[in-house]
Amino acid sequence: MRRVYMDYQAARPVDDRVLKSMEPYATGFFGNPSSLHMLGQEAREAVEDSRLKVARLIGAAKPQEIIFTSGGTESNNLALKGVAARSLEKGNQIVTTAIEHISMINISKYLEKQGFQVSRIPVDHHGTVDVEKLRGAINEKTILVSVMYANGEIGTLEPIREIGEVCEEKGVPLHVDAVAAAGQVPIDVLKENIDLLSLSSNDMYGPKGVGALYVAEGVRLMPLLQGGGQERGLRSGSENVPGIVGMGKAAELAQAEMADEAERLTRLRDRLIKGVLETVPSSFLNGHPVLRLPNNANLRFSYVEGESLLLSLDMEGIAASSGSACTSKTLEPSHVLTAIGLLHEQAHGSLLFSLGKGNTEDDVEYVLEVLPGIVRRLRTISPLTPRELLA
Amino acid sequence: MRRVYMDYQAARPVDDRVLKSMEPYATGFFGNPSSLHMLGQEAREAVEDSRLKVARLIGAAKPQEIIFTSGGTESNNLALKGVAARSLEKGNQIVTTAIEHISMINISKYLEKQGFQVSRIPVDHHGTVDVEKLRGAINEKTILVSVMYANGEIGTLEPIREIGEVCEEKGVPLHVDAVAAAGQVPIDVLKENIDLLSLSSNDMYGPKGVGALYVAEGVRLMPLLQGGGQERGLRSGSENVPGIVGMGKAAELAQAEMADEAERLTRLRDRLIKGVLETVPSSFLNGHPVLRLPNNANLRFSYVEGESLLLSLDMEGIAASSGSACTSKTLEPSHVLTAIGLLHEQAHGSLLFSLGKGNTEDDVEYVLEVLPGIVRRLRTISPLTPRELLA
Repeated sequence: MRRVYMDYQAARPVDDRVLKSMEPYATGFFGNPSSLHMLGQEAREAVEDSRLKVARLIGAAKPQEIIFTSGGTESNNLALKGVAARSLEKGNQIVTTAIEHISMINISKYLEKQGFQVSRIPVDHHGTVDVEKLRGAINEKTILVSVMYANGEIGTLEPIREIGEVCEEKGVPLHVDAVAAAGQVPIDVLKENIDLLSLSSNDMYGPKGVGALYVAEGVRLMPLLQGGGQERGLRSGSENVPGIVGMGKAAELAQAEMADEAERLTRLRDRLIKGVLETVPSSFLNGHPVLRLPNNANLRFSYVEGESLLLSLDMEGIAASSGSACTSKTLEPSHVLTAIGLLHEQAHGSLLFSLGKGNTEDDVEYVLEVLPGIVRRLRTISPLTPRELLA
Repeated sequence: MRRVYMDYQAARPVDDRVLKSMEPYATGFFGNPSSLHMLGQEAREAVEDSRLKVARLIGAAKPQEIIFTSGGTESNNLALKGVAARSLEKGNQIVTTAIEHISMINISKYLEKQGFQVSRIPVDHHGTVDVEKLRGAINEKTILVSVMYANGEIGTLEPIREIGEVCEEKGVPLHVDAVAAAGQVPIDVLKENIDLLSLSSNDMYGPKGVGALYVAEGVRLMPLLQGGGQERGLRSGSENVPGIVGMGKAAELAQAEMADEAERLTRLRDRLIKGVLETVPSSFLNGHPVLRLPNNANLRFSYVEGESLLLSLDMEGIAASSGSACTSKTLEPSHVLTAIGLLHEQAHGSLLFSLGKGNTEDDVEYVLEVLPGIVRRLRTISPLTPRELLA
């Protein structure tokens, strides 16, 4: 059976070149970067070289503005809680949106319990944040604005540059969760006025268990972890040297190959979307039609359960997702799909194909060959399907 | 030049068999354990299999009592802050010791700033915690006792079973930082009445960037990270599947090979200690002479700076440590060496050889061949050295 993996949003394989870069630090003897002997110093240099590569990917002025963490979730926690804890004299309000990643949603709920006020800006039916409403929500108590660069579930790219301008004008720091976007679309923290930016290594074909937070010079943060004072005191714990080296290599490769790969994926994505919308009646695209991640095709089918669709596809060798893998354990409809105005049954009829390096035109054709029949079969057994759809 | 790595306490190479076990999850396609498709379910099974292996290593009754984290520092933070945040009604006092790992030292300082009271039990000149003083420090406000299983710097094994008995008798939960001990000496959380136990993968020849916290059923913890609710809600963030698989394999290997390897290392360690004490005048052993980690030889040389010694050894191809790698950036004397009563100059004249799988008798002989000459040369250029030592 043909195997097609289109769940890159949930987990990505590590690029072979990344694995190769990590090998000397995983297999052989290597030191602790804090050790004084030669091996320790070599490990230190490798870590600093990676810091530079990650800084370059996002246009950071100084490598020391990159803090390595254990992943995107930790970076988001460090950014929000870290700023919150250091801003108590200034205020207690945070402006964010209704479609952030589940980690941001839960961090802001946690902060509300701690007494912070959180304003959640709504999005339109494409999932685009309303910049004027965001401007209106900022007040003299606002300590942070946090908006994602792109939504990994529905693919919509947010107007970060405009939001950055608003934040600069208002003198409020801007945090951007770029986990889903980094390595896929160009990011420039200086031009976009971004003060804090969360990154995940695996989302760029780097190893799991490592991420980074960009912290612009001058932004004050309280660390989440106390310990040996690594990462300028902002992230204690012995450095995950092979992981950090792998993330650096992944960032370097992403920077070099992003333009070509984005073009290729956009072509595959558009073929998939067009093919499905043309061949499956009552099918729709979720998210913005144009301003979307190159790899994201989130589709909606009336009268069908996304989960049944997913399992039927799995039996045909196709791995997709019913939405965000990070919340797929709960059976509630995705907060993102609800925020763009979908009804419960519409949200439950949605399916995310997230493409990546391994996908080819043949993969897309295979999905287009298999999917319409599955949808039709599931609709046939649903009592809700209108007769004309089955004609 | 011969190369001898005796800094296993700072960083360990990953066992080849561990790397092999991780390969399918690092190189190929693998799913997010939260994904519903087949690949996701395979990843979930691999994670659960590792949980079982880690549980077995420490004698935990149920695999779900193991929570995977990003490492020992995070495990320690989660244990202390997690219990503290959930025990506010009960009390605000924590009993710990003066020789904990730097992460524990800094976490308890952080908690003091948050209004908690911390009692630090002194140790004797071998670094052994005074159990009667510990008993006396527990009061009706005590929410947690935290003592390390073994001190990674001076090697001393603590009387955990006795401390566990005291805690059980007093009805206070016991946290044990077992990062330096796990995989080297047998641990049994049930027999030793341990409620929380911190582990690090790399300290057992597993990959970096992963660790675990044992949380006995019934112990309530506040998570450090908000997010997708992974690890029973106690540690959000996409699971580091290859890292977790590697840690599981490392735990399995440690359990199978610990007895033989401990015997082998004890022999090498004792040969090294005996050889140094016999050939270098005014040299001393730090830590307990018998109740110590099989791999730990912490030695002290009068009239010599540990750092000069370290650099001279490095030039001869020998990697050792001046103490805890986690604090070697700061030039202050180690808090552990101070706690066992050493003067500043004694602490600064200390050197840690931490042995491991790669070391052989020849390595020990090479150190014994090189070290006495280096000490003698350094003493010759020190104005403090008494003339009779140079005779």
